[in-house]
Amino acid sequence: MEAFSDGVFAIAITLLVLDLIVPEGGEKHVGSALLREWPIFLAYVVSFASIGVAWLSHSTMTEYVERADSILLRLNLLLLLFVSLLPFPTHVVANFLHNENAERVGVTVYGINLLLISACTSALWHYAVSEQLVRGDVRDEEVRVITRKLDPSLLSYGIAIGIGLLAPKLAVGIYLAIALFILIPFRAIGRWLRRKR
Amino acid sequence: MEAFSDGVFAIAITLLVLDLIVPEGGEKHVGSALLREWPIFLAYVVSFASIGVAWLSHSTMTEYVERADSILLRLNLLLLLFVSLLPFPTHVVANFLHNENAERVGVTVYGINLLLISACTSALWHYAVSEQLVRGDVRDEEVRVITRKLDPSLLSYGIAIGIGLLAPKLAVGIYLAIALFILIPFRAIGRWLRRKR
Amino acid sequence: MEAFSDGVFAIAITLLVLDLIVPEGGEKHVGSALLREWPIFLAYVVSFASIGVAWLSHSTMTEYVERADSILLRLNLLLLLFVSLLPFPTHVVANFLHNENAERVGVTVYGINLLLISACTSALWHYAVSEQLVRGDVRDEEVRVITRKLDPSLLSYGIAIGIGLLAPKLAVGIYLAIALFILIPFRAIGRWLRRKR
Amino acid sequence: MEAFSDGVFAIAITLLVLDLIVPEGGEKHVGSALLREWPIFLAYVVSFASIGVAWLSHSTMTEYVERADSILLRLNLLLLLFVSLLPFPTHVVANFLHNENAERVGVTVYGINLLLISACTSALWHYAVSEQLVRGDVRDEEVRVITRKLDPSLLSYGIAIGIGLLAPKLAVGIYLAIALFILIPFRAIGRWLRRKR
Repeated sequence: MEAFSDGVFAIAITLLVLDLIVPEGGEKHVGSALLREWPIFLAYVVSFASIGVAWLSHSTMTEYVERADSILLRLNLLLLLFVSLLPFPTHVVANFLHNENAERVGVTVYGINLLLISACTSALWHYAVSEQLVRGDVRDEEVRVITRKLDPSLLSYGIAIGIGLLAPKLAVGIYLAIALFILIPFRAIGRWLRRKR
Repeated sequence: MEAFSDGVFAIAITLLVLDLIVPEGGEKHVGSALLREWPIFLAYVVSFASIGVAWLSHSTMTEYVERADSILLRLNLLLLLFVSLLPFPTHVVANFLHNENAERVGVTVYGINLLLISACTSALWHYAVSEQLVRGDVRDEEVRVITRKLDPSLLSYGIAIGIGLLAPKLAVGIYLAIALFILIPFRAIGRWLRRKR
Repeated sequence: MEAFSDGVFAIAITLLVLDLIVPEGGEKHVGSALLREWPIFLAYVVSFASIGVAWLSHSTMTEYVERADSILLRLNLLLLLFVSLLPFPTHVVANFLHNENAERVGVTVYGINLLLISACTSALWHYAVSEQLVRGDVRDEEVRVITRKLDPSLLSYGIAIGIGLLAPKLAVGIYLAIALFILIPFRAIGRWLRRKR
Repeated sequence: MEAFSDGVFAIAITLLVLDLIVPEGGEKHVGSALLREWPIFLAYVVSFASIGVAWLSHSTMTEYVERADSILLRLNLLLLLFVSLLPFPTHVVANFLHNENAERVGVTVYGINLLLISACTSALWHYAVSEQLVRGDVRDEEVRVITRKLDPSLLSYGIAIGIGLLAPKLAVGIYLAIALFILIPFRAIGRWLRRKR
């Protein structure tokens, strides 16, 4: 299960690069052509960070889960469905971030995809815990730490989707903030800084 | 053999996303443009579920098979040929599901591809069993359970191809039903529900 | 080294599907449109079989090789360069098999790519043997069997490139024949048939 | 961490082939059409060699690093971001190497991407060393050898970016030279030649 999942995560995260549009060979001002495409680069970074977060959660979970039953395998496949789908709404958002009228739809579809990835990850973990598929030597405290990390992001995606209906561009910023908030290990950096001082 | 096969499955299942067509940047009604493309999304889900099923069977098999001889390696390569080919007929079906005249051909090619994946999986398993490549500690009962799962799907794909000649859209529905029928672990869910009550 | 190489082989073999051209949505006679594209499908099968052969040789070798020194790692990278390049000449050949004038160039470039894959595989093996990187428990006889398999294919690719200058289509047939000749395990099938009788 | 990273490296290096442009089916002089596209092939080789170098450094490091903490995992993700991004500036450079005016921008963006890959690799290693994540049985001498390999390439990319502002084509040549200089194991080849004599 792990090799296959790691493969899907790795491919989905790398396929995102195909969404970046290379300026035409005849273009005179390449620099400004690239800068004009900033929404595409923003969408690229948000999606890369979001898949990165999903992979980090997934690999923490597979480290703690001892064995997979048939339901867990299927939940995992559902998670991979939404992960491998993400390059699609990423492209839609990038295409429409200059188009006031349509970006609302694109950003909402994008947010729902992120929410579904997050929901599947949570479901996977809660199922594994409730079915005692987690390794015996993992302390209850550690289990609770992971649970406390997974569930709030579900809520924040829900709120961001709501905001996206009113202010799509703001929602993209929030999606980036959520991913960075999970990605940047504030506590570890704090400890590291204290030790260096 | 396993790492390479897992890689091919993971890539084939993730490449499917490239078939989804992103609406043009000038499009006003993105929402309805996306909804109008439902056959592409249906084809995406059917193919994702079918490759998911093939991967599940394959990983169960490689877990039970102890060693691979030269014939098994080649049968496996043939299976991977048809798995990695699936994004092609998926795209053909998606392109023609609005076109009464041509969809028959597309759906038939698609069904034959699914049948060939299923046939290679069955052949791989029957060969491994008959050549005693299966681990010694696997009980005969377990072997029979797997055989009983593999062979009927072969038959159902055959029937669905026949139906597809008369009613292509129905056949696509049947392909989805077959995949979901194998994917959804009814018994495990039943047991889980009974335990929860 | 193995995981990375297996990854490149798996991706190169799966990317070939992107070369297959899906008929336009407006096309009336999909069946005949697909049949007219037979050279693309032929090129697909030849390339799939050739990468399959290269992977089989490579995985046999990595099984026998105990450790990798810095030169072996670089030779391996060179092999992967030519493996991951193959989808390109495949596409060129497919594009020009209807075009008498140009197919000679395409088929020659394709043949040179196959020759280079074969040459790198041979070089990798000869280097590993001469530098005693092969596992100590592998008998000299086994080493010679592999060498005897690798070197003739190098020669046959050389001859086929020469033939391709005169009769390009014939050369493509020969490339398929070479790959199938290595892929089909005649001896193992013979033994299997004798045992079944 | 290793399987996922190896996957991203393998996919990024193989996706480069999609940047190679296949001549149109109607083209009469395929040979010269292919030759005219030499900048694309040069960019392909430079990028392949650069990702190859990054992978070699990365796999040496992961061999020496015993365990990954949360900061190391994130630094690794940042490295993978820049690795998986490389096919994009590769394409930009290839598109503009015939266009005097615009190639400066393309080559600079390309160089910055290479510099960032190199910088992340260095940061990863320095962090692992300073946090004692390196295996205990690795001698200090070995650690210094790796450090001495990583840091100079950072400097040479910096200089090459500067040169690229004045002479873009020369900078592409320097990027190739840097990659080949790291890839070609001069000392190992020297030893090998001495032994053969």
